[in-house]
Amino acid sequence: METVKLGILGMGTVATGLINIIELNNSKIIETINKNLAVSKVLVKSLNKKREVSLPQNVYTTDAYEVINDKDTQIIVELIGGINHAYEYIKAALNNKKHVVTANKALIATHGGELEDLAAANGVKLMYEASVAGGIPILNTISESLAANEFEKIIGIINGTTNYILTQMAESGLEYDQAVKEAQRLGFAEADPSSDVEGDDAAYKIAILSNIAFGQRIEIKNVPKEGITKISKEDITYARELGYNIKLLASAVKNDGELELSVHPAFIPAEHPLSTVKNEFNAVFLKGNAVGELMFYGKGAGSLPTGSAVLGDVMSIVKNSQRDNTEIKKNDRYKIADKAFKPYYIRLEVIDKPGVLAKIAGVFGVHGISLASVMQRQKNGNNTAPLVFITHKAYRKSIDEALNEISRFEEVTKVCSIITVENFK
Amino acid sequence: METVKLGILGMGTVATGLINIIELNNSKIIETINKNLAVSKVLVKSLNKKREVSLPQNVYTTDAYEVINDKDTQIIVELIGGINHAYEYIKAALNNKKHVVTANKALIATHGGELEDLAAANGVKLMYEASVAGGIPILNTISESLAANEFEKIIGIINGTTNYILTQMAESGLEYDQAVKEAQRLGFAEADPSSDVEGDDAAYKIAILSNIAFGQRIEIKNVPKEGITKISKEDITYARELGYNIKLLASAVKNDGELELSVHPAFIPAEHPLSTVKNEFNAVFLKGNAVGELMFYGKGAGSLPTGSAVLGDVMSIVKNSQRDNTEIKKNDRYKIADKAFKPYYIRLEVIDKPGVLAKIAGVFGVHGISLASVMQRQKNGNNTAPLVFITHKAYRKSIDEALNEISRFEEVTKVCSIITVENFK
Repeated sequence: METVKLGILGMGTVATGLINIIELNNSKIIETINKNLAVSKVLVKSLNKKREVSLPQNVYTTDAYEVINDKDTQIIVELIGGINHAYEYIKAALNNKKHVVTANKALIATHGGELEDLAAANGVKLMYEASVAGGIPILNTISESLAANEFEKIIGIINGTTNYILTQMAESGLEYDQAVKEAQRLGFAEADPSSDVEGDDAAYKIAILSNIAFGQRIEIKNVPKEGITKISKEDITYARELGYNIKLLASAVKNDGELELSVHPAFIPAEHPLSTVKNEFNAVFLKGNAVGELMFYGKGAGSLPTGSAVLGDVMSIVKNSQRDNTEIKKNDRYKIADKAFKPYYIRLEVIDKPGVLAKIAGVFGVHGISLASVMQRQKNGNNTAPLVFITHKAYRKSIDEALNEISRFEEVTKVCSIITVENFK
Repeated sequence: METVKLGILGMGTVATGLINIIELNNSKIIETINKNLAVSKVLVKSLNKKREVSLPQNVYTTDAYEVINDKDTQIIVELIGGINHAYEYIKAALNNKKHVVTANKALIATHGGELEDLAAANGVKLMYEASVAGGIPILNTISESLAANEFEKIIGIINGTTNYILTQMAESGLEYDQAVKEAQRLGFAEADPSSDVEGDDAAYKIAILSNIAFGQRIEIKNVPKEGITKISKEDITYARELGYNIKLLASAVKNDGELELSVHPAFIPAEHPLSTVKNEFNAVFLKGNAVGELMFYGKGAGSLPTGSAVLGDVMSIVKNSQRDNTEIKKNDRYKIADKAFKPYYIRLEVIDKPGVLAKIAGVFGVHGISLASVMQRQKNGNNTAPLVFITHKAYRKSIDEALNEISRFEEVTKVCSIITVENFK
């Protein structure tokens, strides 16, 4: 039986998962691809570290080009992460006419188009299912099984760190800072969590999803993003009372021939399937013009789930190695827009005296913003009281203008929160 | 540009959806497969009926073999349903070396193995994504993107009719009979709903899913099934009070090297993602040994969703026509078992007098069944009262033995319900 050889760049958690699955599910793999898979070379930082996998010592090297140039290796799996080195290594591998599988979202979101062109020019495949939503097979499903659809929207909970933090704030009543510490303790957040909590990670992923679903190359700087650092326990409590959960959404929505991209926290109705996506789980909700609404739910990270996605790509390359290499042409068919028209949740802190509500409501009215609900609560200790609004659909610009005016009233001590409401209508 | 010709057998709702999508998304299709798709021949019952699609009149024929034998047609799409005719037509098409796409679950569950062998022998493809869960791309995803996994369990809500009926009973407080009538009025249930409400439809689908996920050919008679005809409004009310929803599940679970197959109503915890699957929506929840838990949610039926799945298969055949035709070998690797060990919900009607509960609980104890919760409620009008138990895990055989004994007590006027509790642990 023929053996297909893999070279692996990097030996972190995903590579460990990949190698363990190849060993664990060896008979299933052979039945599926009718060939053996073997790891020929692995790039490591140090040759002396103890590993959680059982590969012979002579596969390890500290020289990337020993992996990339190995003449018996047909597929290079890039798992070092980051942009610069990975970019050079993948280019070299593709130019060596080796197929490449990567889990590197930052690289694909930044240089994906160029690398796909290079792969096509060399008659090899570049696959990156694991770069978005870990184990959830979303990219290949969009481009294969759902190929008959024009897509209308994609809305994802695609950052497990922030979803873990928001779930803990909601269910254990933790404040934001406490929840971040808990996530760090459990390995769901990094020592510097900024790429997750500021929305950068989700922005990379929605750019890749948009590329696959809309055939549109997205520049990452065109994705407006707002993270979860300003979400307070109070907002989460009000959300639940009003029948919502707060989630960090990454969305790409087609509207009048334009594409609205965004990463932002949002109120989601408690009965919507996305509301049940808790802790480190991810989900991608999409709407196609034929298939209607679909949701894919699963683990967005982790050694084995991400290894499963990488190995799925590897096996697909082995099975389809004779396949037509034509790719969907990517172009600029959609203008990237930023004019979402949505309901908003707004929380103010006001001095509790007669007439305040009427005065504030009046300003919303002047700006054409109508109110769907108002909650006025008991005073805080300092003679102030929280005042919570959910508006009907409005442009963010109008909301900001109204709040700018409202914030100048002497009775308004603070504009605490402005959060989109996603009601899927 | 090359044109690929499709012959379609049958002109019902799915065929209408398919033809409309081909027209609607023509430019997307061409970009993806780099070829034109055209409908060459369509088998209809009557040539004179008015159609909701705009095909030239000369494509229609009442002779199936005019479609199957058309020499320019490369792909036959079978959408007539039922077993006998479809079986003969598909065999003839495969022997003519034409690829076949079908949405026919009864046929694939019954003759799928033989037809796949015939396709392989003729060097053509047989695809049937649309046969399970309509628009949800579950079969191809299991066999392609998730190919690296050994699967541990598959639990699906894969019959939209019964899910609609159960949702309406829960949310609109309808009795079973009323909900069936409402489903019929809206086209979600047929005039004779027995194939759906008795669980046959779900049994076909779980057999096909098991075939794909476990590489195991299942004889449909080996799938134990229980429908929803005995579910009452009372059970649904108790379920909700106890924090559950009742759903008709089709499940295939690997346990100690054996495969437990079943179609049965079950209590699902309200916070589980499957609980948010309402009305005509379907979902498939699965667990792979690498990817962990995944759920796929979407429309399980309908003209456009099912058409989307059929067209996805057609496009896959066109894109991968050179691809290796090796299929996973199916065998009898698992013994089909029927010894599920689960919690149960039990509702009795008893005469309300002292000592009844103790007497009944005593019988459960003798049969090794321990109780997780008991609810005793106010009397009905006739001096009887409902008594509701949730047990800890038990074998169904023990439950039946205990209830057999309990039903003989003079204080027990009725054993109303026995329903599995699926707590995903």
